[in-house]
Parts: sequence; C-alpha cells; structure tokens
Amino acid sequence: MSLGPGFDAYLIPRAKAALDGSQVVVGYRTYIELIKPLLTRQEVVATGMKAEVKRCRAAIERAKRGARVALVSSGDAGIYGMAGLVLEICAAQGLKVGPPEASEGVDFHLEVIPGVPALGAAAALLGAPLMHDFAAVSLSDLLTPWETIEKRLKMAAQGDFVIVLYNPKSRKRHWQLGAVREILLAFKDPATPVGLVSRAMRPGQETRITTLNDLLEFPVDMQSLIIVGNSQTFVYGPYMITPRGYLE
Amino acid sequence: MSLGPGFDAYLIPRAKAALDGSQVVVGYRTYIELIKPLLTRQEVVATGMKAEVKRCRAAIERAKRGARVALVSSGDAGIYGMAGLVLEICAAQGLKVGPPEASEGVDFHLEVIPGVPALGAAAALLGAPLMHDFAAVSLSDLLTPWETIEKRLKMAAQGDFVIVLYNPKSRKRHWQLGAVREILLAFKDPATPVGLVSRAMRPGQETRITTLNDLLEFPVDMQSLIIVGNSQTFVYGPYMITPRGYLE
Repeated sequence: MSLGPGFDAYLIPRAKAALDGSQVVVGYRTYIELIKPLLTRQEVVATGMKAEVKRCRAAIERAKRGARVALVSSGDAGIYGMAGLVLEICAAQGLKVGPPEASEGVDFHLEVIPGVPALGAAAALLGAPLMHDFAAVSLSDLLTPWETIEKRLKMAAQGDFVIVLYNPKSRKRHWQLGAVREILLAFKDPATPVGLVSRAMRPGQETRITTLNDLLEFPVDMQSLIIVGNSQTFVYGPYMITPRGYLE
Repeated sequence: MSLGPGFDAYLIPRAKAALDGSQVVVGYRTYIELIKPLLTRQEVVATGMKAEVKRCRAAIERAKRGARVALVSSGDAGIYGMAGLVLEICAAQGLKVGPPEASEGVDFHLEVIPGVPALGAAAALLGAPLMHDFAAVSLSDLLTPWETIEKRLKMAAQGDFVIVLYNPKSRKRHWQLGAVREILLAFKDPATPVGLVSRAMRPGQETRITTLNDLLEFPVDMQSLIIVGNSQTFVYGPYMITPRGYLE
C-alpha cells in the first residue's frame, strides 16, 4: 500500500484504513519512522536500504500464515514501488493471490492501494508541469543498464515529452545527472525550464525552478525528483507551466 | 484540487479539508455529482464538457473577489488536469498568484493539491504495470496535432517504455486507437500485455487484461485508460507485472 509523499494529510483514507486494520506493517526504516504516529499496536518489520527483496519476502511469509499485512511504499506503491516485486515473488513461488473480492482457492488476498505518487507531489509544488504527455525515467543504473536509460532519454527528448527523472543521484551515483544534461541538450533548448523538488510534503522540502543549462548548480539527492519541461513549458512567477493548448 | 479516482476512500485529507473550507466549488458536472455528499453548504458552479476555459475563468473571478474557491479535477489536477489552465489564465491576465505561504503582493493564494492520478488508480487495479519507466500519451487530437501524438508513440515504443494511453476514445474520436495499435505493432510484440481499465474505483468499474494484438476487441470510452506493457511485462493470474529487475 501507498503512503503518498509521507504524511497524514496526503494519505488516502483507504490506505489509512488498511494500516489501521493490519496486524503487521513491513517497510523501509525511514518511511516507518515517518508514519510512526499511525502505528499503534501493529507488529513492525523495518528493514534497511536495498533490502527490498527481503522486505517483500517477509511480508509474503506473514500473509501466507494468515496475518493481515501492510507492506508500505512511499509515494505510490504501483509506480517504481513495491507492488511489482511482491507479485513477482508470488509468481516465482507459484502462490495464488487475488483481489479481496476473489474468494476461492487463493493463498491470500492482495490489494494494491494507490497513493499520491512522487511525480504528482513534485508537480503540484512546481505548478503544472505535467499538463501534457510525459515520460518517467529512473536514473538508477543498479538494475537497468545505462545504455537503456540513455536510449530512453533520447527517445523522450526527441518525442518532446516532459521528462520526469526519478533517482537522479545517490551517494554512489554521481555522474549520471551530468550525462543526462548532455543527452538532453542535444535535443532541447538550454533555456528549457527544469523543476527540482526534494522531500516533497516532508520536513526539509525544497523546490527550485532553473533551466536545463543550469541544472547541475543545485544540490539533489536520492530524495529529489527532477521535471524537465517540453518545448512549450514556461515559467510564470513561482510556477512551471506546460500548456495543454486550450488558450491557443 | 484533485478528487482522485472519484470517491471518498481515495480522497486525500488535504483535499477534503480544502473542499470543507471552500465557499465556492467549481467543476465539471459529472464530477460534482460524484462528490455531492461532500458538498454541504458551498455555492456550486457546475459546467458541462469542453467548458474548461469557462470553468477556470469562473474560479479565478471568484478568487479575485476574495472567495475561497475549490476548483475540482478528477484524478490529479496536475496530470492532464485543470491546474495548468488556471495558471495559464492567471499569466495571461497578469495576475500575481502564489502559494499559501506567500503573504505579500499577491492577488490571491493558490495551492495545487495533488491526488491519486488516473494512471495510478488503473495501475493498482491491474497489478503492477508501472514498475519501470513509462510514458503517458493522450490520444485526444482536439488540441494536439495527430502527427505529434504519432511521433510520441513511436518514440515511446522504440524506447521500450510502458505506455499509458489517456483519452483512448470518445463519441467523436473512433479511429485513433486502431491507428495506435498499428503504430505500436511496428515495434512491439503482438503478445505484449495490455490492460484496460474503465471507471477505476467508481460504479461500473471494469478491468481487463489482453494483448496488443487483441486490443480492439474490448469496449473503451472516454472514461477508460489503457496501459501497454514493455518487452518485459508479463501476466500472472489476474495481474499485469512489469519487473524492475530485483529478481534477475
């Protein structure tokens, strides 16, 4: 299930109810901390970074034994989140899972509860950059070859998509964002508006609008998301706006 | 502000509070109907289809005169929603607007409140199709030349993006989805999983998983959203899953 950007005001009632009704809550330590006030009596299984597979297996094990488990993901569990890995492991183990309304012959019920995704939270803080076609690309090359990422960026740029960059940087990944800037500059105007958002709707939230050319002048990290405009995107006051075409 | 897929269980508390605190609620008639139980004492301005500009102008006029206005959008107001048009009109009128924390010199305050977007709601019902890079393309050629849409689809297919199709069909737009199928078949396997979701989390909700080849055999309309997998997407039981790569 999805936590949204990380706080109560952005958590949908359906997710809140699932959390309240759960016996076990499984998640990444940092996010478990964020929702601590909501965890009253549940057993908590908090794991560290890069323990995604372990975390999902733990959740599945508990569910198989009959517990009501909430596996939490920040943002939307269905967008670069934990929903896929859970289902992949179920498939690998040959487990039969189905939605809550499926009654017969399942090992356990599973519901993917959506939430406000990181790209939606960032877009809201920037104004309205996602009013037209957009492509989301994760810059993490831990699980995806860099050549694939590079090709996708080129295609997205040539298609004049608004481009949302997930995982722009981490302690171990330094050079990728500079490479992205070079790739995009081959197709896009250096003055293209770029929005940087870190820790959306969380303590330490930062929002900044700059240009593709100056993209590297501001700090970003694992909790940042970057939105690069299309050829029509413009800046007005504190807002980044991609027109849909209604006023033309 | 965003209504999410359309019902209370998917409406974030921040949006609920904005609705409760508003004096005027402006929106498309169909969505106003969906949230009627939440509208207790507010003045309601409901307009018909294609009245987007009129609707936004009405909201801005009221806000300029000091009213607390909630302009509602289904899904996420920031993803193909009303947020951009409002800001565009403010820019065209030279109005100074800023976030709630900006105190001086603004004509009125404006907050874009995110919600669960249509693509997130559809993805959750289909399983986990958006675990990896994806591109969203609207098939509505009312405001966008078909050549642009076609080019974007080609680029998204060549980049092996998961592709989310917004506005696949309407009463007046019949041929587009067939054309999309042809375009995508030039790059993608005919067996590529495709998920169709109509009226997610609303009465009459329908979910179906088929293939790119058989895409046209099922009814879709303006309230449908289509997700076409990438080369790795597979089907397991009732779910469509795009692997991230953790288990490889």
